Amino acid sequence: MYGLIMAGGSGTRLWPHSRSGRPKQFLRLSGEQTMLQETARRVLPLISYERLLVVTGPGYADLVREQLPELPAENIIVEPSGRGTAPAVGLGALHVRRRDPDGVMAVLSADHSVERPDLFCRQLAVGETMARQGYLVTLGITPAAPATGYGYIEGGELIYTADDERVFRVRRFVEKPDLQRAQEYLAAGGFFWNAGMFVWSAESILCELARFEPLLAQGLALINCHLHTPRAAEVIERVWPEIPNVAIDTAVMERTSHAVVIPSDIGWSDVGDWAALSQLLPQDDNGNTVVGSCVQIDTRNSLIYGNGRVVATIGVEDLVIVDTHDVLLICPRERIQDVKTMVAEIRKRHAALA
Amino acid sequence: MYGLIMAGGSGTRLWPHSRSGRPKQFLRLSGEQTMLQETARRVLPLISYERLLVVTGPGYADLVREQLPELPAENIIVEPSGRGTAPAVGLGALHVRRRDPDGVMAVLSADHSVERPDLFCRQLAVGETMARQGYLVTLGITPAAPATGYGYIEGGELIYTADDERVFRVRRFVEKPDLQRAQEYLAAGGFFWNAGMFVWSAESILCELARFEPLLAQGLALINCHLHTPRAAEVIERVWPEIPNVAIDTAVMERTSHAVVIPSDIGWSDVGDWAALSQLLPQDDNGNTVVGSCVQIDTRNSLIYGNGRVVATIGVEDLVIVDTHDVLLICPRERIQDVKTMVAEIRKRHAALA
Repeated sequence: MYGLIMAGGSGTRLWPHSRSGRPKQFLRLSGEQTMLQETARRVLPLISYERLLVVTGPGYADLVREQLPELPAENIIVEPSGRGTAPAVGLGALHVRRRDPDGVMAVLSADHSVERPDLFCRQLAVGETMARQGYLVTLGITPAAPATGYGYIEGGELIYTADDERVFRVRRFVEKPDLQRAQEYLAAGGFFWNAGMFVWSAESILCELARFEPLLAQGLALINCHLHTPRAAEVIERVWPEIPNVAIDTAVMERTSHAVVIPSDIGWSDVGDWAALSQLLPQDDNGNTVVGSCVQIDTRNSLIYGNGRVVATIGVEDLVIVDTHDVLLICPRERIQDVKTMVAEIRKRHAALA
Repeated sequence: MYGLIMAGGSGTRLWPHSRSGRPKQFLRLSGEQTMLQETARRVLPLISYERLLVVTGPGYADLVREQLPELPAENIIVEPSGRGTAPAVGLGALHVRRRDPDGVMAVLSADHSVERPDLFCRQLAVGETMARQGYLVTLGITPAAPATGYGYIEGGELIYTADDERVFRVRRFVEKPDLQRAQEYLAAGGFFWNAGMFVWSAESILCELARFEPLLAQGLALINCHLHTPRAAEVIERVWPEIPNVAIDTAVMERTSHAVVIPSDIGWSDVGDWAALSQLLPQDDNGNTVVGSCVQIDTRNSLIYGNGRVVATIGVEDLVIVDTHDVLLICPRERIQDVKTMVAEIRKRHAALA
């Protein structure tokens, strides 16, 4: 099996620790390794570096090389600009199919966290089995709460069981719901979070793209003709701005009849904001998550993400404090979603810090 | 008139901006100049540098020299250790009397702020007139609120009027009151905050010290015998640890019958904590006091005292944020008095940062 790590994102929700020049996937957040490194090592039992491809933007290729020195140079695929996940997946699929016409690929996000990598690998292996039969496989995360921040996948008919893993047809993909609907999904069961993790053969996904996104498929075909030729870079630069900007979910998964879902309870997190990160890190007796050096007096339920400097807190509750060498963020937990607004503001007034 | 600036304090209440190695008087807080420099320049219309003496500790003499280069070297008086204000005042008085047996001195704190320096100088001049008649003069601050953090002076008989200034006999000095009593003082009128600002002749204060603190006076007499001799340093080092550690208020002012008070409405502040400092600095429309660079979203009634780094605040209210190069303090306004506790904690765990 091949792996395609999607490492082009430039998310802002962990600002100021993450910056446009070094987004989340290139940061050490909870461990010794960066999220990209963790993503690669997590699937190493299944996918060697030779078969691991990374799609990223031109500004990040050096970071990928630096953080994954084991990766062969030709496995770094640079897309000229971010045009949604469908073009990135399609480009990756061209590379996989060129190496192995029957190649199966797992699509992985570079900036997600997984607590149970063994289970994750077992499920990817089941996914590979299904993908070789032509299915488009998605891992659907067993919901732990009525989250409104993710799309949901509704499972249908059970079509396969292997060991403890079950595979269901996908009944439908559902957009991010409101709270009431999310609560209904949780109560009903059979609904899973769409975490954007897929397994399919390169041929299958390219066929479905051709069917549902013919303009995108034409662009990819043109790129494919010149892949690994001296004109490759020139062609992709010309084609890329013209192709549709679309997510693989919308382009294919919501439309295809071949989608299946493997319910997945792997301790997944997209580490989507500071509150999510604080749940991944150990807490002290007062409910505080502390990275770095902190002296506390009456401090509770706060995230203190330091950067060398000593953080001294008195009477602080439910606060997020993120210290970096050039920016300091202070925000109550309940306002953490407004970090995006702050980054927009910072972009206007201190562009170098965004 | 001579001036004696008391610059030996090592207060902790503006930590982490102030440190034991560089306490408040040596910091720029609200202006271009440090508080020591402001103190000296404030009285310059009355007291030239030649007649200005500074008492400080051995660790701070270099800072005084650096910040007041106009001061003659012999005007820096180093006390071997802090033993309360009475010994420091006595030591200063020895120097003044040596230069001028009839010398009058104004005793000034190096770390207080005064909004109306012209009025302040006029009142010091009235004080000088009274001091030449043998009175021990104190400027009593007209209370703006029922503060419980200061001692109070109760005025008695009106004994002198000059221009708009009035001078009263002191009926009594009162210890820091509780809130109810402070409210009574404010309602009654005729009570003033004891700000530790005095004017007296060197001879008068040395006489009163001899009367009320004979042990201290003996020590001072010994030092006086060797003042400006080669043995001066050795004698003061030997005498100093043995003399009583006592404040001039307790030693003299609460006991003498020669005390008078000039009611003083000079916009005085001892800048005793971060809340006090924020009242001295301009506020924006949201009630925030910002020093340095700050990007705010929904931020109110907060003090953001920066240090180069951009401080980004979202949904922050009534918070004090003090950023320095090696420590960051976060504390609600209402807990600001606990900074002292924090400093004690820091002293244990990160002594270099205290």
